[in-house]
Amino acid sequence: MSNEKIPYKIYLEESELPKQWYNVRADMKKKPAPLLNPGTGKPVTAEELEHVFCKELVKQELDETNAYIDIPEEILSFYKMYRPSPLVRAYCLEKALGTPAKIYYKFEGNNTSGSHKLNSAIAQAYYAKQQGLKGVTTETGAGQWGTALSMACSYFGLDCQVYMVKVSYEQKPFRREVMRTYGASVTPSPSNTTEVGRKILAEFPDTNGSLGCAISEAVEAATSQEGYRYVLGSVLSQVLIHQTVIGLESKIAMDKYGIKPDMIIGCAGGGSNLGGLVSPFIGEMLRGEANYQVIAVEPASCPSLTRGKYAYDFCDTGKVCPLAKMYTLGSGFMPSPNHAGGLRYHGMSSILSELYDQGLIEARSVEQTSVFEAAEKFARVEGILPAPESSHAIRVAIDEALRCKETGEEKTILFGLTGTGYFDMYAYGAYNDGKMSDYIPTDEEIAKSLSSLPEIK
Amino acid sequence: MSNEKIPYKIYLEESELPKQWYNVRADMKKKPAPLLNPGTGKPVTAEELEHVFCKELVKQELDETNAYIDIPEEILSFYKMYRPSPLVRAYCLEKALGTPAKIYYKFEGNNTSGSHKLNSAIAQAYYAKQQGLKGVTTETGAGQWGTALSMACSYFGLDCQVYMVKVSYEQKPFRREVMRTYGASVTPSPSNTTEVGRKILAEFPDTNGSLGCAISEAVEAATSQEGYRYVLGSVLSQVLIHQTVIGLESKIAMDKYGIKPDMIIGCAGGGSNLGGLVSPFIGEMLRGEANYQVIAVEPASCPSLTRGKYAYDFCDTGKVCPLAKMYTLGSGFMPSPNHAGGLRYHGMSSILSELYDQGLIEARSVEQTSVFEAAEKFARVEGILPAPESSHAIRVAIDEALRCKETGEEKTILFGLTGTGYFDMYAYGAYNDGKMSDYIPTDEEIAKSLSSLPEIK
Repeated sequence: MSNEKIPYKIYLEESELPKQWYNVRADMKKKPAPLLNPGTGKPVTAEELEHVFCKELVKQELDETNAYIDIPEEILSFYKMYRPSPLVRAYCLEKALGTPAKIYYKFEGNNTSGSHKLNSAIAQAYYAKQQGLKGVTTETGAGQWGTALSMACSYFGLDCQVYMVKVSYEQKPFRREVMRTYGASVTPSPSNTTEVGRKILAEFPDTNGSLGCAISEAVEAATSQEGYRYVLGSVLSQVLIHQTVIGLESKIAMDKYGIKPDMIIGCAGGGSNLGGLVSPFIGEMLRGEANYQVIAVEPASCPSLTRGKYAYDFCDTGKVCPLAKMYTLGSGFMPSPNHAGGLRYHGMSSILSELYDQGLIEARSVEQTSVFEAAEKFARVEGILPAPESSHAIRVAIDEALRCKETGEEKTILFGLTGTGYFDMYAYGAYNDGKMSDYIPTDEEIAKSLSSLPEIK
Repeated sequence: MSNEKIPYKIYLEESELPKQWYNVRADMKKKPAPLLNPGTGKPVTAEELEHVFCKELVKQELDETNAYIDIPEEILSFYKMYRPSPLVRAYCLEKALGTPAKIYYKFEGNNTSGSHKLNSAIAQAYYAKQQGLKGVTTETGAGQWGTALSMACSYFGLDCQVYMVKVSYEQKPFRREVMRTYGASVTPSPSNTTEVGRKILAEFPDTNGSLGCAISEAVEAATSQEGYRYVLGSVLSQVLIHQTVIGLESKIAMDKYGIKPDMIIGCAGGGSNLGGLVSPFIGEMLRGEANYQVIAVEPASCPSLTRGKYAYDFCDTGKVCPLAKMYTLGSGFMPSPNHAGGLRYHGMSSILSELYDQGLIEARSVEQTSVFEAAEKFARVEGILPAPESSHAIRVAIDEALRCKETGEEKTILFGLTGTGYFDMYAYGAYNDGKMSDYIPTDEEIAKSLSSLPEIK
């Protein structure tokens, strides 16, 4: 089909929406390393995980054989309220850059949580409700995940307890109010409500908090209350599975118009949005059906793929979660406080880590001011103010489009625009005022943080 | 077509999008009263208006005969970036209410300005650019219009100077940063940058500002700079014309599925969103082709339709604009500072005022806490956190759906969901904390404010 016929936005009919999620592990010959019990050093069992997580989600977490998982009817109904998300042809950005490249982005920000997080939140809330639970606990950093989960819980009538990284709780009061409007309780972390929180506060009374620490508190809160389980917005394989709705929709939309991307770009924090976008495409690569250049973009201030180590590590600061083999900077790694937005997790999804190790994904790190420069350029021509996280992908998409301009190549670029920046205006304000700075950890800092990796028996 | 087949969201193909705006005045036998020159008391001429407004927009302002106006290609291209907006079947809300009514809403919030305002902003910026202007000036209250205009100006490379009502400037720093990110300059009003601002500051040094006052400043700024004109986000007929894209898209989407609304509901501040939604339907009524119940919903704290007077009045506090015949509370009317969100304008679009006077529209006023109650209910089941303004329409839509539950009538309700509440979290916070209060002006207050209506020679 000729390019002239491709609309600005490709939507799918309800009947065209994916009815199954995709589990890329089924197509991987070498599987990701299993989660380990930190006490025994042996692979965790479903039974062990079910103390913390919902039963059905544990099944998905450990499933390495089923390539497709049916999406329950109730989740499909909820998806229909805000999905399909549009696949957008960035005609205006292409024109502004003067590039022969064709740029597409899959925009996940058109819902009140402001991001892709809702795709997994509604699934996790559904399975919790199915199991007859009273509620769930979780952590949130920038607040997107907490917002998404509070929306999902309110839909199913579940209690929702959110531990919010203290610095975000203070800097993002609006996110907090959105969660409260959806009926969630929000506690700044570290807090006095958990043992691990009290311990961290005693040692570091002035701490800003961290995701790893909020995870530990949320896990403790889940396991110490009857009828509660812990849910997580990224990193885990179950989350990546739910996020494949992004990549599956993208493929259906592109196939409708005969579009084949040469390059797929996404930002990488815990890895679930990137994994969700790319795994249907990587599945084709694993099955020998196609080839794509897949690029993970991470912040230079928290460079787990580009400068971390592929090793077993703790997923949380409190060291209560199972060990995961992943690219990590060490569970004690603290990104510079001047770093805006999310993508500040010390590790990376074990699926993505393994795919990266197998050479199916490449990684780049980008600095904060150049990310906001790309965000501003994008906002001004495409009419969407992007989240700082998503803007990491925009940065590399623009760089690649400009490279095409030099070489004259008409490459087709697809990137994931995971969310909007409406709750990140402090960071935009700092950028507008010229007060934003970059920070790259030194080799010594990373080496020191990596020195605390656990020893596996 | 049976209801089972109606999807959650009806989107239109690019090829189905309206290519013309609709001008309801062409179908009105009795036209709205003309704008008057406050000095002479005579109808303003195009030439007089062109000192303040762009030439092409003046033509639209005064056009009473052409029912359809072609949308220029460049505006259609921009519309394609964020339009069509979805027409949503509120299945979840219907279920939560247990109503036999069928509820639809046209959602205009899926763009970075967060509202329908962008529909007119891009048109006004386009005509300013066409005329070879350097830039435009405007006022903004809650900030939606200013954001929309800054986006539109940045797209066409125009300078954008925004006078923002001081209380909003202080309470909504994030809106301000969005505008700055799009390259606009934002000045709190009243300011020292204009004569009228200095005069108001001298008389009321502690004023919170008002829309009427910001309008006066923006008009002065436009007329005192070479190559600038003033643009306005509501009230004027030209704005209402641009907003008909909402109603036209709604009709096309409903016609596709054979849906005919019994009742059309919208919130009313200056009147342009409501006018844009309903005028294609009212056109059918005027031509004797159909009949609809049309309801304008306004805040009880600023009740221009339900308690105002149909008379010539000043459009702005500084009394520099033409006089308009409209339902008004008097140009000196100041809504209570505890009133959240927009819809705080003292007057009403002269087109809507005339339609209301002819009995084609009815009006209701609703109190603030009941509006937020409806907003919360809607957010929790429909997954969209609505703007306080839009929630006025939600309140009445819910009331009408509950009435259907009592009577058993299966009415079809369409309402306009003009925007999202992401930048209104202070107000939501006050509601969440139980600190929101209602205010209804006394008859004496309104009579006093109306006593300053101008005398027409």
